[in-house]
Amino acid sequence: MRIGRGPDRASGSSETGLVQLFTGDGRGKTSAALGTVLRALGHGLHVHIIQFMKGEYAYGERRTLAGLRNVDVSLFGHEHFVDPADVKPEEIAEAKRGLEKAREVINSGKYDLVVLDEVNVAVGWKLLDVEDVLDLLKGKPERVEIILTGRYADQRLVNAAHLVTEMVKIKHPFDQGILSRKGVDY
Amino acid sequence: MRIGRGPDRASGSSETGLVQLFTGDGRGKTSAALGTVLRALGHGLHVHIIQFMKGEYAYGERRTLAGLRNVDVSLFGHEHFVDPADVKPEEIAEAKRGLEKAREVINSGKYDLVVLDEVNVAVGWKLLDVEDVLDLLKGKPERVEIILTGRYADQRLVNAAHLVTEMVKIKHPFDQGILSRKGVDY
Repeated sequence: MRIGRGPDRASGSSETGLVQLFTGDGRGKTSAALGTVLRALGHGLHVHIIQFMKGEYAYGERRTLAGLRNVDVSLFGHEHFVDPADVKPEEIAEAKRGLEKAREVINSGKYDLVVLDEVNVAVGWKLLDVEDVLDLLKGKPERVEIILTGRYADQRLVNAAHLVTEMVKIKHPFDQGILSRKGVDY
Repeated sequence: MRIGRGPDRASGSSETGLVQLFTGDGRGKTSAALGTVLRALGHGLHVHIIQFMKGEYAYGERRTLAGLRNVDVSLFGHEHFVDPADVKPEEIAEAKRGLEKAREVINSGKYDLVVLDEVNVAVGWKLLDVEDVLDLLKGKPERVEIILTGRYADQRLVNAAHLVTEMVKIKHPFDQGILSRKGVDY
């Protein structure tokens, strides 16, 4: 993850980590983060994935990740979906625990890449205060790369990120009456 | 990958595979395909990734994939970048070998998910005939899921796909003078 110079293929360490953000209503945000993880692991980097608001949902990816070295996953959230119009105190508390864990992990010196999966939604639905996430990004050790995912990304998070991709839905099988499918969607 | 009914968590097999397509100028197309692979492997699915036009580029992801079960990678292309204004006969021949391999893999009965990475570019740059790719999609065994990636997706491929996401570049570190970085970009 060296920047502004030739790649150093002998070293798994990074010098300057950026903030990447994947948002939008299209499929591929969490998947793009996971693909980046897969690539980073191939370079010997150490990765921690913090999943906000996923509950037991993401078991496909977690099963594969469990068989890989140098990657840890921390799960926050409940099995049910959060209703943004009726957010429960325990949902807020759980998201805050996730952010606290993120802070610990990012500052631990053990990880090169930290994924905050669905953190954009947690902010968008007021489970987290955007200022707290911005503080975390601002105070991160320079070498740590961070990926934020989820739709509804707050403009201040977009501004704070170096790389932003909007996944735009052109066509989705749900629109054609096809339900969520094991193996590809979760 | 069952459709229109509850997920069958006991079985790794799929019933109806769709065609997914990731295109656009933003980062995350190949990464989203790789993340989907990671998720599919967690469900016991069998995956084959055919990389068009990548040469020795994708070694980070390939190193991780090499340590995983049930996933094979076939690489076509050269180490140099293809110049779309000056396509060489050997580049066309290599892409055609890739498509031939894709046909064999898709029809082998051995794989649930086949990724044709950067095939959109191969079509866009006339290394492959779009009709040949459409034929492959049309004739695929019903249960096989296919993912096409790459910018410049031909509209006929978009029409043939069930799920299409356009990765739109909102912000990219290259624009800020930051070069491609090992570990996250390749």
